[in-house]
Amino acid sequence: MNVIRNILSSRSGKDGNFFDAIQNIIGFKPKVIKHYKRAFIHRSLNKKDALGNDLNYERLEFLGDAMLSSIIAAYLYNEVPGGDEGYLTKMRSKVVSRKHLNELGRDLGLIKFVESNVPKDHFGQNIHGNLFEALVGAIYLDRGYKYCEKFIYQRVVAPYVDIEQLEGKVISYKSLLIEWCQKQKHKFNYEVYEDTGKDELKHFAVKLWIDGKVVAKARATSKKKAEEKASKRAYYAFQNKISPK
Amino acid sequence: MNVIRNILSSRSGKDGNFFDAIQNIIGFKPKVIKHYKRAFIHRSLNKKDALGNDLNYERLEFLGDAMLSSIIAAYLYNEVPGGDEGYLTKMRSKVVSRKHLNELGRDLGLIKFVESNVPKDHFGQNIHGNLFEALVGAIYLDRGYKYCEKFIYQRVVAPYVDIEQLEGKVISYKSLLIEWCQKQKHKFNYEVYEDTGKDELKHFAVKLWIDGKVVAKARATSKKKAEEKASKRAYYAFQNKISPK
Repeated sequence: MNVIRNILSSRSGKDGNFFDAIQNIIGFKPKVIKHYKRAFIHRSLNKKDALGNDLNYERLEFLGDAMLSSIIAAYLYNEVPGGDEGYLTKMRSKVVSRKHLNELGRDLGLIKFVESNVPKDHFGQNIHGNLFEALVGAIYLDRGYKYCEKFIYQRVVAPYVDIEQLEGKVISYKSLLIEWCQKQKHKFNYEVYEDTGKDELKHFAVKLWIDGKVVAKARATSKKKAEEKASKRAYYAFQNKISPK
Repeated sequence: MNVIRNILSSRSGKDGNFFDAIQNIIGFKPKVIKHYKRAFIHRSLNKKDALGNDLNYERLEFLGDAMLSSIIAAYLYNEVPGGDEGYLTKMRSKVVSRKHLNELGRDLGLIKFVESNVPKDHFGQNIHGNLFEALVGAIYLDRGYKYCEKFIYQRVVAPYVDIEQLEGKVISYKSLLIEWCQKQKHKFNYEVYEDTGKDELKHFAVKLWIDGKVVAKARATSKKKAEEKASKRAYYAFQNKISPK
């Protein structure tokens, strides 16, 4: 009964909205919502906990950064068995680069949850990446390493990590595909369409048509990314016909 | 039956000795012994796996380093609720410093397992820390994050991590204790004694006598460390009487 009461009370009103929004972003139910709340408290609020310690997301950034690094390290270790220590270190730093983390935080729209005394347009770009790290830290505290891994695979690895692109072997699947179509005289176009799927975070849906047939579909957080994703899918489907230089 | 046969065959002869030695060091049973074997293959052997990839411990160092960093990060996050991001970063780098990792690897005697084409006295000091990291990587592959955490708590955190010492507030508990004894005119001495306990790795046992009574006992990997540990125990027992400056 207590459990049910806690769930109900933690999900009512404003808290309920926050709970649902977080669940939608992380892909599973939060258990202890206060960890996620802390992940969005900016230092400008000057909040303190009962013991007088600072209560903001900066310590969670430290924790999330550490989890992200080790999860990506393990992913790369398994994914690239031929990569030596130097290669793995370099690839990891590309995946967890400031630019990349900012993009992740921005795509997830994390800034809308921030509580601060500073107007939101006064923050620099790094706030997006910082919030992303803090969110990872909160997931670790709430659900442990396994769920952190799940979140990072779903939100970082699957949509963003492409070993060949990171290695610089393939700059863009879209340009590879266009080049091939032009050479082979195939007609192609990218069609943006309405998709009322469940995943609120992926607003853009694209169909890739070649010679009057839909050969790939993709959804992503921007039109450009959806096109790239559809191209990549088509690229792998046509792998024998198109090859990167 | 296959499981039993595998256990029996993997534990026979030379492999059996290695299995037992690793189990003794890590504190639980290895499942897939090949991960631990790889953790001791030096690049000078120039070994390759079936796919032609290098087979030595260098990739495992990368993995182990990442696991160690995140586990120590989480430990410090929980242990020092008042420490900000800068403090946590600084403290972690002290715990996982090269010097510290070399000490850990040396104390565990990891170098005796190395397979290499180079005479062991040609290795520099860093090999101890590198082997320690590789061992952590092997534990991760074999048993996952939880067991890695267990090993690091048992072998790194419990015997080596003292927040007050890392902060530089207490340089040595032994000197604090001696100073107090001299001031208060207490007689004291450290007695090294035989201890046939189960933990082979902790060879040195020390009793701390004050005014004809044993006030603390400790075991460690060196006489100096055992004395420090006994002093620390006595220090906490006498906390109200002795205080650090």
